[in-house]
Amino acid sequence: MSKKLTTRSEDYSKWYNELVNKADLAEPSDVRGCMVIKPYGYAIWEKMQTKLDKMFKDTGHQNAYFPLLVPKKLFEAEEKNAKDFAKECAVVTHYRLINDPKNKGKLIVDPEAKLEEELIVRPTSEAIIWSTYRKWIQSYRDLPILINQWANVVRWEMRTRLFLRTSEFLWQEGHTAHTSKKEAINEAKLINDLYAEFAEKFMAIPVIQGIKSESERFAGAVETYCIEALMQDGKALQAGTSHFLGQNFAKAFDVKFTNKEGDLDYVWATSWGVSTRLMGALIMTHSDDNGLVLPPNLAPIQVVIVPVYKSEDQFNNISIVANKIKDSLILNGVSVKYDDRDNFKPGYKFNEYELKGIPLRIVIGPRDLEKNQIELARRDTLTKSIISINEIAKYVPKLLNQIQEDLFEKAKSFREKNITKVDDFDQFKEVINKKGGFVLAYWDGTIETEEEIKRATKASIRCISYENNDEPGNCVYSGKPSKKRVFFAKSY
Amino acid sequence: MSKKLTTRSEDYSKWYNELVNKADLAEPSDVRGCMVIKPYGYAIWEKMQTKLDKMFKDTGHQNAYFPLLVPKKLFEAEEKNAKDFAKECAVVTHYRLINDPKNKGKLIVDPEAKLEEELIVRPTSEAIIWSTYRKWIQSYRDLPILINQWANVVRWEMRTRLFLRTSEFLWQEGHTAHTSKKEAINEAKLINDLYAEFAEKFMAIPVIQGIKSESERFAGAVETYCIEALMQDGKALQAGTSHFLGQNFAKAFDVKFTNKEGDLDYVWATSWGVSTRLMGALIMTHSDDNGLVLPPNLAPIQVVIVPVYKSEDQFNNISIVANKIKDSLILNGVSVKYDDRDNFKPGYKFNEYELKGIPLRIVIGPRDLEKNQIELARRDTLTKSIISINEIAKYVPKLLNQIQEDLFEKAKSFREKNITKVDDFDQFKEVINKKGGFVLAYWDGTIETEEEIKRATKASIRCISYENNDEPGNCVYSGKPSKKRVFFAKSY
Repeated sequence: MSKKLTTRSEDYSKWYNELVNKADLAEPSDVRGCMVIKPYGYAIWEKMQTKLDKMFKDTGHQNAYFPLLVPKKLFEAEEKNAKDFAKECAVVTHYRLINDPKNKGKLIVDPEAKLEEELIVRPTSEAIIWSTYRKWIQSYRDLPILINQWANVVRWEMRTRLFLRTSEFLWQEGHTAHTSKKEAINEAKLINDLYAEFAEKFMAIPVIQGIKSESERFAGAVETYCIEALMQDGKALQAGTSHFLGQNFAKAFDVKFTNKEGDLDYVWATSWGVSTRLMGALIMTHSDDNGLVLPPNLAPIQVVIVPVYKSEDQFNNISIVANKIKDSLILNGVSVKYDDRDNFKPGYKFNEYELKGIPLRIVIGPRDLEKNQIELARRDTLTKSIISINEIAKYVPKLLNQIQEDLFEKAKSFREKNITKVDDFDQFKEVINKKGGFVLAYWDGTIETEEEIKRATKASIRCISYENNDEPGNCVYSGKPSKKRVFFAKSY
Repeated sequence: MSKKLTTRSEDYSKWYNELVNKADLAEPSDVRGCMVIKPYGYAIWEKMQTKLDKMFKDTGHQNAYFPLLVPKKLFEAEEKNAKDFAKECAVVTHYRLINDPKNKGKLIVDPEAKLEEELIVRPTSEAIIWSTYRKWIQSYRDLPILINQWANVVRWEMRTRLFLRTSEFLWQEGHTAHTSKKEAINEAKLINDLYAEFAEKFMAIPVIQGIKSESERFAGAVETYCIEALMQDGKALQAGTSHFLGQNFAKAFDVKFTNKEGDLDYVWATSWGVSTRLMGALIMTHSDDNGLVLPPNLAPIQVVIVPVYKSEDQFNNISIVANKIKDSLILNGVSVKYDDRDNFKPGYKFNEYELKGIPLRIVIGPRDLEKNQIELARRDTLTKSIISINEIAKYVPKLLNQIQEDLFEKAKSFREKNITKVDDFDQFKEVINKKGGFVLAYWDGTIETEEEIKRATKASIRCISYENNDEPGNCVYSGKPSKKRVFFAKSY
């Protein structure tokens, strides 16, 4: 706790890693590329889960659970999906270990216990779920199916970073089945809107909504809807995706239904997900050189009360008042911790709660008691004010709402300043390399141009925004006609 | 939905499988031994999760998340634990698939992508967690650590049954670390008490609390505390276990702490868990030949309202009242569904909700409207009564509490009738084979006797109860001196 964080301007990546570690969010494990999510980090993830789960249920979705392991045969069924995920999957080939006859106390894989067919640890669950839906769907009466799953998935990543890219991560994956193309597209859009609302209202992270270019689409999707956020270092982060899968998986798994007219047709599908990656987005949107900054909605503890005292008498008197304040805040729906630990000094505690991003800190000393007041410090602005004890219960909930709004506005204003319209490729390269952020530029719509731009600048098309206020123009790279500008950026 | 269930007396096992399927709780998957938990089954599991999670948090525990995959080296560290779980584990040996050059569209394991060290899909997480705790614990100030994890685990089972024994299952596993033996034992007992309270108060399942005999202990534990339930077919089911692990895992992973006196000592540990197996216990405690019977606490829908009508006018009038009743019940904390589907007849709906165990069914017909009354049917007793519409909002919550209590009392009375004290081995065999249930008999405390009894009767020691009102006696098998009677039974 004692050593300061590397600052963001010194080394953003180092700052991130130190913060994740020192704020007790997560740490690397003994398993290559996999993380341990520590209790404080997990408590924040639980806040996200609870909110998202409610939003899914309020829009008619139900949770279910499908197997972790996918037989290779099923995994192969949807060609594009298989091709993309085969590169990075964990493969179970045996089902038993035995004592190593040559090495006491050691275990070896039992060669007798080889599986006839290998099992893949799910990198995503379309295959296992659509092979199940086949049994559930006969008629239009069985549709729609609106199912979500909270699960772990494994993708064998070569270069990993805590929360942002790990071999195992936690996520939710929705998998829906519909009678018509239109209904499935509406579902995919509905979820993308839901993700945007969650990111902006709950996480205070402004996002651009739109669709992905063909080359950035999910393997097996007809269209990928997405929300894209901008991090403090000018790189974009894909915060959530919702895929319209057409009839690709229905065809791969032969899932047909009888429609109202009595004809057989393939089922239409969507899938969608957000993951523990959102923890990375949270950190890199709001935090500062002192540590984590949490929007009040996501803070497991919203207010911490720290007593400052010399004598035991002082401590006892402060504690009476602190506990009253705590109770009154809890009654007003605020989560509060009174840190009455005697073996840590106030300065140490201040530092700890700053690092952990607790939105508000209340300090009470003997003089405050005399004056019937406390000192209130905002984590986001690092500003302090003096408040009468009588006003706290009313004032704090309002202030928490204010902080939530302010964090969103601050992030939004940062993003607006970092969207640059460019009309020639030299400027494109300069902005991407020096300023960073989103570059809004005309694109001719071809995969070739997208690839050339990526090769030259490392920037990819992050999002083709829903909004279209553009006159037609000319591609910033090829000069060919272009209908609209798209968002380019380097990305996580 | 149309076909009746096999009755319990015909074939209990068949009845169970049919019920799980027809009540839409779960089904087998395309992956050997793994199940799909369907939305209705998962909603019941979520009720259990929510309650348990609150109980854990109210007793100071926090959630966290540890990796799914465990390096073989860590898995080997605690010898007994490793030996027991090595027999039935899924082993990841490769991290990539490639196109089969001989077979277009097919994938094969890439021989180039062999892992240097195999990874085990966790069958339980002591190994990975204690290798992590090693980094977290230096001093007594870092203790206790009270962590729980909600996770999936894989144990390669040869003979599987939905919920009761599946290769993958969902569970929670608590892993705690303490400064003293006493504190760790208290934690293990606290959790066993918590499990007992959860089973009895929330699931309405009476349990016997106690400890396991040595041969039934968790591999690596010094003592295993347990709760044991009795199913309708006279077999026992282990519903939850809580292990005092001594310093076994601390020694295996070299986890030491500096105590207050400045001396180094190994950390004391517990682990504990309940799983989706509880779904099996739920079904086999309360359900009947008509289907599932749910205690109101576990019912995703507590009350269903079914309209009975001929004309559209009748339907509209009934719907107005039904929606009012629904709203007033929701205000009183009751979860309600109004089934206004027009394409299913009332009889079909009655059958469906009986199968799914909805605790209360309200039927409203045109005559009921005239008389300002409804018909109320209890799922547990299958009894009906007529209630004035004005009384429903007050009456139903009380009745739900009554049903919850009645289910517990019924199950408890069944269990009491099926605990038989026996004092000679012929009687032991006869009771186990003909009557079933728990046999309460003197045991000499040796593994040998326990094994002989098991070989002769298939009954094992399920629980050595905390309670001890027995005079010393003589072992039912060996005739040797015995301090107390223990609970024997055949078990799931």
